[in-house]
Amino acid sequence: MTSSSLKKPVPLDKVRRYLEPGPIVLVSSAWEGQRNIMTMGWHTILAFSPSLLGCVIAAGNHSFDMVRRSGECVINLPTTELTDQVIGIGNSSGAKIDKFEQFGLSAGAAMKVSAPLVHECYANFECRLVDDSLVDRYNFFVWEVVNAEAATSPEYPKTLHYTGDGVFMVAGKVISRREQFLPQML
Amino acid sequence: MTSSSLKKPVPLDKVRRYLEPGPIVLVSSAWEGQRNIMTMGWHTILAFSPSLLGCVIAAGNHSFDMVRRSGECVINLPTTELTDQVIGIGNSSGAKIDKFEQFGLSAGAAMKVSAPLVHECYANFECRLVDDSLVDRYNFFVWEVVNAEAATSPEYPKTLHYTGDGVFMVAGKVISRREQFLPQML
Repeated sequence: MTSSSLKKPVPLDKVRRYLEPGPIVLVSSAWEGQRNIMTMGWHTILAFSPSLLGCVIAAGNHSFDMVRRSGECVINLPTTELTDQVIGIGNSSGAKIDKFEQFGLSAGAAMKVSAPLVHECYANFECRLVDDSLVDRYNFFVWEVVNAEAATSPEYPKTLHYTGDGVFMVAGKVISRREQFLPQML
Repeated sequence: MTSSSLKKPVPLDKVRRYLEPGPIVLVSSAWEGQRNIMTMGWHTILAFSPSLLGCVIAAGNHSFDMVRRSGECVINLPTTELTDQVIGIGNSSGAKIDKFEQFGLSAGAAMKVSAPLVHECYANFECRLVDDSLVDRYNFFVWEVVNAEAATSPEYPKTLHYTGDGVFMVAGKVISRREQFLPQML
């Protein structure tokens, strides 16, 4: 039982709440009886509704064929509690090991996709591939988030933000400037 | 004179150091005697070398035509010192005001592009448009960073990471786990 066990649904147009700040994420996938997890940091929100995001999954990754062929993945949001796992997953290849077993993570059943989710993560974003036209040029996948859940607490997770060279920035304090925004900009 | 006045060159394949953690940025551009700045949070690194990044600039923005027609922009990295300006720029349209003047920012000359840079920002990434094939579908621009500079201090800037709803996460503590990484993963 971790602090991420109790989860609530996230409206799909609010996914930016968790991913826009640039956290490192874990991408889980499955294909033909195999499953895998990879660490990924190159992603961006593309649209609110439909809820679209784009990410780079390089062709050298064991997950590349799995996500492209299955057309599905779960993007999981780890927090500092999982720092060792994030690094270990990034350092190893799913061609040789089952990363769920190796790193003591639980593969949960997703609601809308066949790919497994990483139960211990703070949030899980179930994705279907909607556009692979930039995959050959940039390894860039466009996903639609079809189901989203996030832990009920803490309100703002201690996410990891990679800066290269083995160094992470950890999510710091949260400041609300809501009163300064035009209503239509919120 | 702000803390961002003294800058050093950044190797182009190290741009991820500043942008991968997901900071909100200011995009400056110019076209036919007009200049503008917009606040932007939907971006991702796409490649190390050439140094490519992708970002969403919605067609409704005054900057959209300026960046598409000029094929250039500067992506500027503000820190918490510029929070009011970041919000003010996001709340207003360059169709009506000169945002440099309005928000007391200095338009600096870039090295490799004609677009102005925002001098007060911690870092400036000069960009040339290399692929607009996803602009019509997703407002997604692919840029090559052709020149990059960052302030000499502090080593890790207090960047702003937007979570929607008027709330920002501020960059927190920095942890190095370099010793846990395989050399080829650094």
